[in-house]
Formats: sequence, C-alpha cells, structure tokens
Amino acid sequence: MTGNGNSRLNVLSDRNGSDGTLPPLEQDFPSSRKVFISDGEIQVPMREIIISGGEPPLRVYDTTGPQGYDVRQGLPPLRQPWIERRLREAKRRGDGNFTQMHYARRGEITEEMRFVALREGVSPEFVRDEVARGRAIIPANIRHLELEPMIIGRNFLVKVNANIGNSALSSSIEEEVEKMRWAIRWGADTVMDLSTGPDIHQTREAILRNSPVPVGTVPIYQCLEKVRGRPEKLSIDLFLDTLIEQAEQGVDYFTIHAGVLLRHIPLTQRRVTGIVSRGGSIMAKWCLYHHRENFLYTEFERICEVMKRYDVSFSLGDGLRPGSIADANDEAQLAELRTLGELTEIAWKHDVQVMIEGPGHVPMHKIKENVDLQMQLCHEAPFYTLGPLVTDIAPGYDHIASAIGAALIGWHGTAMLCYVTPKEHLGLPNREDVKAGVIAYRIAAHAADLAKGHPGAQARDDALSRARFAFRWKDQFNLSLDPTTARAFHDETLPAEAAKQAHFCSMCGPRFCSMKITQEVREYAAARGLKEEEALQAGLADKAREFRQSGGELYRAAEEAGGAC
Amino acid sequence: MTGNGNSRLNVLSDRNGSDGTLPPLEQDFPSSRKVFISDGEIQVPMREIIISGGEPPLRVYDTTGPQGYDVRQGLPPLRQPWIERRLREAKRRGDGNFTQMHYARRGEITEEMRFVALREGVSPEFVRDEVARGRAIIPANIRHLELEPMIIGRNFLVKVNANIGNSALSSSIEEEVEKMRWAIRWGADTVMDLSTGPDIHQTREAILRNSPVPVGTVPIYQCLEKVRGRPEKLSIDLFLDTLIEQAEQGVDYFTIHAGVLLRHIPLTQRRVTGIVSRGGSIMAKWCLYHHRENFLYTEFERICEVMKRYDVSFSLGDGLRPGSIADANDEAQLAELRTLGELTEIAWKHDVQVMIEGPGHVPMHKIKENVDLQMQLCHEAPFYTLGPLVTDIAPGYDHIASAIGAALIGWHGTAMLCYVTPKEHLGLPNREDVKAGVIAYRIAAHAADLAKGHPGAQARDDALSRARFAFRWKDQFNLSLDPTTARAFHDETLPAEAAKQAHFCSMCGPRFCSMKITQEVREYAAARGLKEEEALQAGLADKAREFRQSGGELYRAAEEAGGAC
Repeated sequence: MTGNGNSRLNVLSDRNGSDGTLPPLEQDFPSSRKVFISDGEIQVPMREIIISGGEPPLRVYDTTGPQGYDVRQGLPPLRQPWIERRLREAKRRGDGNFTQMHYARRGEITEEMRFVALREGVSPEFVRDEVARGRAIIPANIRHLELEPMIIGRNFLVKVNANIGNSALSSSIEEEVEKMRWAIRWGADTVMDLSTGPDIHQTREAILRNSPVPVGTVPIYQCLEKVRGRPEKLSIDLFLDTLIEQAEQGVDYFTIHAGVLLRHIPLTQRRVTGIVSRGGSIMAKWCLYHHRENFLYTEFERICEVMKRYDVSFSLGDGLRPGSIADANDEAQLAELRTLGELTEIAWKHDVQVMIEGPGHVPMHKIKENVDLQMQLCHEAPFYTLGPLVTDIAPGYDHIASAIGAALIGWHGTAMLCYVTPKEHLGLPNREDVKAGVIAYRIAAHAADLAKGHPGAQARDDALSRARFAFRWKDQFNLSLDPTTARAFHDETLPAEAAKQAHFCSMCGPRFCSMKITQEVREYAAARGLKEEEALQAGLADKAREFRQSGGELYRAAEEAGGAC
Repeated sequence: MTGNGNSRLNVLSDRNGSDGTLPPLEQDFPSSRKVFISDGEIQVPMREIIISGGEPPLRVYDTTGPQGYDVRQGLPPLRQPWIERRLREAKRRGDGNFTQMHYARRGEITEEMRFVALREGVSPEFVRDEVARGRAIIPANIRHLELEPMIIGRNFLVKVNANIGNSALSSSIEEEVEKMRWAIRWGADTVMDLSTGPDIHQTREAILRNSPVPVGTVPIYQCLEKVRGRPEKLSIDLFLDTLIEQAEQGVDYFTIHAGVLLRHIPLTQRRVTGIVSRGGSIMAKWCLYHHRENFLYTEFERICEVMKRYDVSFSLGDGLRPGSIADANDEAQLAELRTLGELTEIAWKHDVQVMIEGPGHVPMHKIKENVDLQMQLCHEAPFYTLGPLVTDIAPGYDHIASAIGAALIGWHGTAMLCYVTPKEHLGLPNREDVKAGVIAYRIAAHAADLAKGHPGAQARDDALSRARFAFRWKDQFNLSLDPTTARAFHDETLPAEAAKQAHFCSMCGPRFCSMKITQEVREYAAARGLKEEEALQAGLADKAREFRQSGGELYRAAEEAGGAC
C-alpha cells in the first residue's frame, strides 16, 4: 500500500500558508456548519444550513472535503482501514479484482457503498444492485485513500465534473491544487486533471493527495509527453506502463479513447469540425500512420486487467464527439457509440466499472435521441457528457450555452455533467472561471434532479422560496448556491443592514412590492377570521367548490412542504 | 399626430454628449457594418459580419437601431409617411381601428408587415395571415414613429424582451435611456419600461423617442402612483385615462392583469409564494377590498376601444404566475390562463392584437405542459414568458437558471422570452447586468430557433464553427454574440497578435491541439491523393460501404453548409 504520500508533496511551496489561499469555508457559506450522518460506523459529511423563522436546519450534499489540512501534508487517509482489510481478505482467497462491481456482483456491500447510500439517502442494497448491473459506478481507486466515495448513475443525484490542469503554456502545481479545492468548494463532484505540461506526474500527485473527490485523467496525454508529441510512437506497452504509474498514484477513472476505430475516421472527413477530442485525434493519427486498428481497442482486455487490480473505472472517451451543432448525432459519433457499447460488455466481463463519455455540441432537439441511443447501445452504463452546448455562437458565455444542454441531458438520464467554463474555446480557466463553470453546472444538475422528481431535491428550493416570501433575506442568501454573491448583489442597491429585515426589496420599492401586498391581503383576510375567504367562496357558488376539489391535492403538497405562509 | 417629440426631451441633460455614453457600434462589433435589405421601398437594417478565408459576409438580425442621433432629439420618424397616409385613408372611410390585425383581416398588407417579412425572410402574405389569425403580433402603436417593426409569433424567430425602468429608490432618466440603448445593442427585441418613480411620464417619453424597438409598460404602476400607492382607490376611469396618456406617447404594448379574478384569489392562499406579480397583487388587493370583480375584467371591452385606436397590443398579464417551483402549473395559474383565453377572444372581436404572459418559476418537466395548455386555452395567441427559472436556489445566477427554462419553453413554442438578469430577486440591474441578461437570453432564443429547425438559424453557428476549425480566430470572435469579450478572454492566455494566426490555442498548446492534429490527418490523406481514404475504404469491405450509405445524407448537408475543410 502506498502511504499518505506526504513526502511526495515536497514540490509544493509553503508560500500559501498551511491551508492554501482559500478563505475559510464559513466565509463562503455563512450560517452553515459541517455535520456528519452515520450508520453507526461510516461518517458522511453534510453541510447544514441554519435557518431563522422557526424552520429546521436544511442539510445539503457536501463535496468540500475535510478542512484545515496543510496541502503539503494532504488529507487524512479515510479509506485506509477499509482497503487494508480488503487486501488481507483478497490475499487469503487469491482474488486480484478489487472493483466495486466485483464485490457488488458477489453480493457484498462495501464501505464505499454504505457511504454513498447514506450520502444519497437510499439503502446500501440499492447501491449494490445498481453497481452490480453496471447502471452506476463508484469511482474509487484502492490507492486513493483520501476519497470520500460518491456514486454516478441515473438513479442518483446528477453529478458535476470540473476539469483542471495546466498546459505547456502556463499554470503551476500550486495553482492547480487550489483550482481543485476551489472547484469542490462550489460543488464539483469529481475533478479531471488534464495537465499536459512537464510536471504532469507531480501535479497529479499533489491533486490526488488533497482531493476528497474522485480524480479522472486522460492517460494518453502523459503518453504523448513521453514520446515527445509524436503520436505515431505510441504503443500499448507505453500505455499500460502509464496506466500503472497513474493507477498507483490513485487515479479513480481513466478516459480511454478505445472507440476511435480505423473505419470510423473517414466518417469525419466531411464534418464541419472534424475530430475535436484531443485523445480522439491522437489515436486517429496513430491509426492512419500505421494503417492499423487502434491498439486501445485491440488490446482492451489487457487494459481491463490493470483497471481491475486498482479499481480504476473506465470513462470510455468519445473521441469522435461532435465539435459543432452541424456534426451532432452524425454517423461518426454513433458508430463510435456502438463500439463503446461493445467495449462496455468486455469491461463488465472483468467486473470493471464503466461510464460513457458524450458530447459536446448538440442542438436541443437532438439531445434526448442521443441519451436514448446511449442507454440502448451501452446497456445503461452511466452517461457522462461535456455540456452539451446547444449553440456554437456564444464563445465567452459557453458555460451558459452548455448549461442549457446539460440540464436537458441530465433530465433525460445523463448521470454526470462535465462543466464548461466561460473560457471554453478561448483560453485556460482561472479561478473565477472555475467557480462560474461549477455554479452554472450545479444549477443544471439540480434542475435535472427536480425534473426527474428526485425525492428531496425540492426541499432546498422550497426553503429558499419560503424565506423569500417571508422577507428573511439572510436565509435567502444562505440557502442559495453562492450566498456571498447573492448578498453582495442585494447590498449594491440596498446596503443598509436594516434592509435585510425590510419587508420589500429594491426592485419594486415599498409601494409596489407584490409579496408585501400579498401578505397584506392575507392579513386582511385573517383579521376577519376566515370570513373573507368564506364570503369569497360563497360568492363563487359552484366555481369555488370545483376549484377547491381539483386543486386540493396541490394544496396538500404545498402544506406538507411546510409552507410558512 | 404627435411630432417627433423633440421638445419633450428637454428633461435630458447634455452631460453625455450627443450620443450618450455608449461606445460606437463598431467598437462592440468589429468587422461588422450596417446594411439594408429592401423590397424596393422598405429598407430593413441588418448587420453584416465580414469574414476572412474566402467566405461571404454573414448577415444577422439587427436590433440596434439608427446610430449617431442625439438622445435629446430622438430617432428619425421612420413610420411617419406610412401612418399619415393610413390616417387620411381611415378618415375617408370613417374607420377608427388602426391595428395590424384589422388590416390583416381585411387582407391588406401594411408597411409594417412588409418590413417584418424582409426582416424574417418570409413572404408578406405569410406575415399577414399569421397576424390575421392572431398567432403573431406586430406591436406598433401608430404614435411610435421611430419604431423599426418586428413580429412576435411562434412561426418567426424567438424574440427577447429586456425590462428596464427606475424605481422609487434609484436611477435617473438618462440612465434608463442608456439602459434601453445598451439592451438593444446586445439584441433585445423589445423593452419594457417598468419605472415606478416620480418621473414616470418623462422617463417613458425619453425612452420612446429613442427606441427603435417596441416599448411595453404596465399602466397600473402609473395608476398606483396617481392614487399615492393606495390600490383600493384605483378605478376604471383612472385606468383608461392612463392608458390614453401612455398610448398617446406611443407605448406599443400594455401588460394588463385582467385575468386576476375574485374567485382566483383563494386559490393562492396556500401557495409557497402567494402572488408574486406586482400588478396581480395590486388587483387582488382592490378586489378583496371592494369585494368586487376586477374592473380590468368587467370593463375589458372599454379597454379594447382604447387599444384599437392606437394599435396598442395586449400583453395579458399573468398576475397569478408561480413565484416558486412549488407553485408551478397550479390551479391559480391555470384558472387565470383560462380567463386570459376568454379575454383573447374578446380582444380579437375588436381586432386588437394579443399576447399572453407566462411564468416565472417552472421545473423543466412542467414546461411543455404549460406551453401546450397556453396554446390550447388561448387559441395560439403568442406566449411571452418570464424565464422561467427551473430552480429557486440560484439567486445571483438567475439569468442562467432562467435561460435554461427560456430555451426549453422557446423550443416548445413560446414566441418571446422576457430576460432575467443576475440581479433578479436581489436588486435593480445595472448596465452590466442588462448586458448579461440580454446575452443569456439571446443564447436561449437562438438555441430555441435551432431546435425548432428555423430555416437559416444554423448559418451563423456553422460559419463560426468553420472559423474555429480553421483557426481563423478573429472570425470566430466577430461571429460571436459578444466579440470583444471573446477576444479579451482569448488574450488573457495568449495576448500576442501572432497568436490570432496560431494554429492551436491556449487550452491544449501546440502539441495537443485536436484540431491541428485533425488537419494534419487530413493533409496526410490529401498528400497521397485520395489513396489513403480509398485504402481505408478497401480495408473496410462492406462496413465502409454501409457507413457511407447511411451517412451520405449527413455529409451532403455539411457540404451544402459550405464546409471550409
């Protein structure tokens, strides 16, 4: 077993102090505290938002991880006892397969499954069954001990991934670790380290030792570094070596472009934007140069052998995803998707967990078709899409153009949404871009949860709406995705502390406030007992009764939600 | 006839210079120029974007209006000759109805219809027929001579409205005029002046005389000013006087909350957020106080009489729209919608144009149901929705939360989307918020046009994608919704002018650029004549032929779009 890896983090300078440059959690989330829910043994972090007005605190899913640790030391190895016991047991019975799917299919419930069951509010058995049938994955490399396990599958909350990573042109290791911590603060469920520079190994190490969320990579990037940027020099042996190097570090999922086949390449010739996936274009070049089939495809079972020893999950890359609206759902994309379906079955034969990557750029009317085809061709393996952008004309605002597609594709069954920042297509995201991207995608994922009718998803909306209607301004801020921004926007127009108790807001002023007037209407009615409402109803004759009857159920639902008004 | 109203604009100070504080149009849209398309008489402005790489210029819809006019003088009275002739003719035959619907139903094609036909690329007859059957409206008060006519209907491009207007708490007349001009620069198709302060008449005058787009108002706001904020003092006579005052100024559409009936009010009692429409709550208070039916409903035909004399369009207000996810599509909302359907038929009896306002806050899975009900209950009168927001938890980011809903509802048939800014629920939007809101909604509207398969909508996406793939950076910027922001984001990482010719971008660097590699792949194939592709195809045996056949049509489509690659 690898230890906590502290000694390997000496590349990190100490200029940032013990906890990096991030403000304390309480500063970004006032009136919140970390709490733990437990089944008696497993401790799962949640964030509890304290609400005034006699309402109970609201608990929300928490991705922020343990706080107050020195980034040069890394996070505590939460999973160490679980994994050590599992390794001992495996040795006894001579089993070298450590995947969650392997345990699930044997009927075993792992600590990781119990953790995600508590986190999602479902039974451990349900988690096990979903993992066993491949409809959900728990990306959890047995070397990533710092991980707080999470699950990706369409019968769970929709997740968000944030891409980080330097390029040859800029950015330091410290900055990338800070970006990761910043991304999970705002709600990223996983991060992908897409670094391509010279410090690729050290950057990954620093991220992994500080990451409580699964970390994904695209190993072909490091392979290409090793062959000095010449794709034709790539080989399966180099690739497997690189997989092992990264798996040893604890990477939880690998994007592997094994679906880019020789026969698919001509299908991209007349596209508007050809091949836009880096990994896809690297493999296409290799295939054409050697005029041979993609070695990631032909040697796929050797790759599975590595994956299962560490429980690294496949994120089967969509090397032929459309890079423009014009290319969406075209034959190149769908031919690759069929191949990814074949590969899914091979991986599952090895009990290796799989998710399937998807586009990209797709106009709204083609989104559902894309999800339906993915489910059918890939046997319900979780779908993990980049956006998609629903138009190409919004550079500078692609977090918005893609949040529309992400919300829609999440509703239709996509399990994880890879964020897009405002810098997409233009440059590398800085910290503010990372935050903007994560928040846009938290909105999309939550909107999808609501549309799917996920139990409990609406509790936060309702709590915030009650606070809004009752003019509990601070509650409204604290219940929002970004309390300090909400408060700052409010303070621009009405800065006084007293305004936060005001029974109106700056948009309408006291005279025009609809919510104030509605409250007056209700008070007016209440002051006369129920007479006002009775009188109204009497006046309605049949109409009122009819409305009451047809609307009755809606009212009960609103009451159960605990309406304050 | 009112003249150009110059003398009434003396409330505007000259501190802003002759053309206000806005930068010249060319600064925000480099390599663009205004051009005019014509049927020989009517001149319709378009913006032409010059593209390099041998591509023809691309023409896009242009809302920015005539440039270079002094805001204290107002815009030139484009419609003056049309209206003067129409008034003379009407006098001859004793007809006091000036609505576009009235002319359309008589089979006449007005200059406004010809203008929008050119603007939308359809026949004037089609415009006339859609207006005649009430499925589209051309909001065009005969006193708003500065107007460049536009059309709102689901068989036309999806439109965007931007709300502006001061409140009792802040903002000056100059600022509101500048906000209007700023909003149309970024693509607002109409603006609503929601001012509630003391200068309400003068603000409206300044906006109208400078607005080339239709201006909407909510007249009940001014009525409430006139009765010093006491809703119970409102009356139909005061309301009609106010309508005439505003109609004389040239307001193009009025939001009127005539669907808030006495019997609907109890339906809101148990809502999470009661009544959130200002106009709706004002009328509810009046109804309860007097225990009488809403005078806007009972005296609706008197209102129609005013509307038709000026051709002011109804925007039938949704006073009972949901203010939270919990209240979406509830009985209060749908009961009001049924009433708006009744009122639509009454308005149409008078040949008065009608659109129907809609929510608000609606989770994604209830959006289509809402549009379908609106079409059915309101006989396909155009739908005009505020967002809707698809979750309540995003204050500070509600332009994004609502752009998701707006794109979706636009796709399903909503004709105009009322923007939401990042300040929604928190404060009054400043200029940057207005821009952020308009751009988010241009994305939503365009995404809806693409999803509806609007002919020509994809041309801009394709041109931008071709530029992207060919590394024509400046074309990519210039074709985007906000060229200077796109360019600034690019320059943050790669500031050098040379980088704009670079065949890679900062995200991947030269080694990893997928588009660069794809181009190399294509060059590699090209260098061997077509041999490479032939060889590949030969290798594929049946497979290749099969793929070719099934994919053939997609390729042709890509080629017709003029693919540069």
